[in-house]
Amino acid sequence: MPDTAAASSWRLDTIEGGVTAPGGFRAAGVSCGIKAAGLDFAAIVPDGAASAAGLFTTSLAQAAPVVLSRQHLLQSGGLARAVLVNSGCANACTGVEGDAVARATADLAARELGCPPAQVLVASTGVIGVTLDLNKIAGGLRAGFASLSDEGGHTAALAIMTTDVSPKETAVRVDTPRGAFRVGGMAKGAGMIEPFMATMIAVVTCDARVEPAMLRRAVIAVTSDTFNAITVDGECSTNDSIFVLANGHSGVEVDDDLYPALLEGLRAVCRHLALEIVRGGEGATKLVTIRVTGALELSEARRAARTIANSPLVKTAVHGGDPNWGRLVAAAARAGVPFDLARASVAIGPVVLFRNGQPHDEAAPDAARYLRGREVTLHVDLGAGGTREATVWTCDLSAEYVRINAEYRT
Amino acid sequence: MPDTAAASSWRLDTIEGGVTAPGGFRAAGVSCGIKAAGLDFAAIVPDGAASAAGLFTTSLAQAAPVVLSRQHLLQSGGLARAVLVNSGCANACTGVEGDAVARATADLAARELGCPPAQVLVASTGVIGVTLDLNKIAGGLRAGFASLSDEGGHTAALAIMTTDVSPKETAVRVDTPRGAFRVGGMAKGAGMIEPFMATMIAVVTCDARVEPAMLRRAVIAVTSDTFNAITVDGECSTNDSIFVLANGHSGVEVDDDLYPALLEGLRAVCRHLALEIVRGGEGATKLVTIRVTGALELSEARRAARTIANSPLVKTAVHGGDPNWGRLVAAAARAGVPFDLARASVAIGPVVLFRNGQPHDEAAPDAARYLRGREVTLHVDLGAGGTREATVWTCDLSAEYVRINAEYRT
Repeated sequence: MPDTAAASSWRLDTIEGGVTAPGGFRAAGVSCGIKAAGLDFAAIVPDGAASAAGLFTTSLAQAAPVVLSRQHLLQSGGLARAVLVNSGCANACTGVEGDAVARATADLAARELGCPPAQVLVASTGVIGVTLDLNKIAGGLRAGFASLSDEGGHTAALAIMTTDVSPKETAVRVDTPRGAFRVGGMAKGAGMIEPFMATMIAVVTCDARVEPAMLRRAVIAVTSDTFNAITVDGECSTNDSIFVLANGHSGVEVDDDLYPALLEGLRAVCRHLALEIVRGGEGATKLVTIRVTGALELSEARRAARTIANSPLVKTAVHGGDPNWGRLVAAAARAGVPFDLARASVAIGPVVLFRNGQPHDEAAPDAARYLRGREVTLHVDLGAGGTREATVWTCDLSAEYVRINAEYRT
Repeated sequence: MPDTAAASSWRLDTIEGGVTAPGGFRAAGVSCGIKAAGLDFAAIVPDGAASAAGLFTTSLAQAAPVVLSRQHLLQSGGLARAVLVNSGCANACTGVEGDAVARATADLAARELGCPPAQVLVASTGVIGVTLDLNKIAGGLRAGFASLSDEGGHTAALAIMTTDVSPKETAVRVDTPRGAFRVGGMAKGAGMIEPFMATMIAVVTCDARVEPAMLRRAVIAVTSDTFNAITVDGECSTNDSIFVLANGHSGVEVDDDLYPALLEGLRAVCRHLALEIVRGGEGATKLVTIRVTGALELSEARRAARTIANSPLVKTAVHGGDPNWGRLVAAAARAGVPFDLARASVAIGPVVLFRNGQPHDEAAPDAARYLRGREVTLHVDLGAGGTREATVWTCDLSAEYVRINAEYRT
């Protein structure tokens, strides 16, 4: 039903660019010396105060910038004049000193912009346990603000990368009967990716006018089946943050009628970024879609899908192109949700390998051929007698993942 | 207190051998063609019916031999005349045909031994989804029973291996004021090792006389801090089983007074086998002891320890010798148990790297030197204000793990 309604009342088109694709946003990516080399500081600045919403890691060890940005969104009532992101240092587990540097960063930017510090949002990504160097950040702020441009989105996307193999950005135009607005975004991912946004940082911009409360509602709705439906390695970090800003520059005001169009625009951008994070997962060679059906509850379908998606045996089998459906059964059966072996089924792509308690190993060669592709779907029906289903995206587990993470700091 | 009481009333000594170290047990390991090459069938036979207890996987996809052995222990009231284990084929997810082969295996052995089928326990380990070949098993039974010997424990330990790099067996003698008894055991492990006994199969023998109900109580008590306190990759298999037999051959009867001595003997054997499983974890190069303290509840300490032990980022850091304590904090903080960053602490071996919310990265070189060892201890205090603690053993995650599991069937 949403699809036909959507088709009649608005239209989505992918457009060039990222966070500066929507009108009235400038951005910059600069190098300020936190990393040994390369861009490491990004600023995204709307023309004037934008509506802002954020979602943050559920970890109990929240990094200093996470604690501060959460506070700022509450204090400002959901308004922001800037989002500042540094890479190379997570400023997590850094005690009162880390808190002070995060706060000083926002204060410096607020003075520059002539706004309350609560309208500055900050995020950090990189190694845990190292306090951010305020002098370097101050230099980054100066250089970044000096080079802000409405074509700076790409450089900003480059500046937030850590072990990412490529920048992640996308944008869409949403045409509605009341005019067009744009949504753009950038993200960084790589390791520590799990539901609840792991080491992930995403900034999404929109030039529609959206009240802060509605924007917050939209972010929560969209995140559950985009950023919260991906996992690289089951880890959840201290720094995961997603920020969405809406500045009204397009003149299109999102009310209840247009809310579904806003959701679709945000969803398209967030899903693209989320899948790019999985594709770019550390050492990943395949994008794996895990579909679980036959659950009694949505939460149970999600839990089973995540258990399968985080199973090292499933992920290594996919990596090796081995149609080892037994590992899919084993993972589903230990997920702690209702599962009936006698009614369960497993398919790898279009190839059914197990149904009603019986293996169909004769189809294994077909499944092995299918697994040679770069994008594969694994489908498990829990046989629990329900109709709820869930999809989670993950990547395979390669020796390269181990190499990257055994040597991250050395 | 148990230690001093133990020292005054009994004594434990490690002795040579495995399941045939206790008196009145014969065993054999033979080749019956399930594997392409090598030993693949083991029989362990007490002289007469022994008390028997078993613990099995909590997976909802229980293999045919698991279902049957569980039934048999109930039907026999905890008596067994034989334990039969094959490797190379798990007989899991094999439907009614798999059930029939498991039952036929027990029937054949029962006819041979002149006992009810319910006194035969069976276990299988290997690839999921392939039905066991009854003709091969019948051949294995004939050859195995023909070559039973009271020195056959080692060959049996060889016959239950799958991807294990070496056989796992151990035995102890327990000297008590009422005489000596022995406990011996063998196990297979490798991948799919998690609490609740993963692909693990263990057979433990004892020549004390123990009532079935007491034996069952002892197995449950001992397993919680041995086989259920290890994890290689967080997986839990369809086939995990542990069997304990006690035949009374030593003449020592275990009553309430001697029960602690029985526990100590079983615990020594099971802990040794459990740690050997971790040491022999797929691709493992280090034995890692995860100690979690400062929890409010034992279950919370265990949960945090398991989350840390299954964290791929922690395991790859240990593999690379990287004292990345931030990953320990991140894992503990996402475990879903009370955790206070401002009061938590992390030590790698004797080196404290994080305490009271502050990093001590200046100690990182010392921790890196410590991590070069083959056996390392990681300690996280949750800072939750409690005094409960738990220990879990795991191994590092290497590129070799990926290689083994990407190519298992190909």
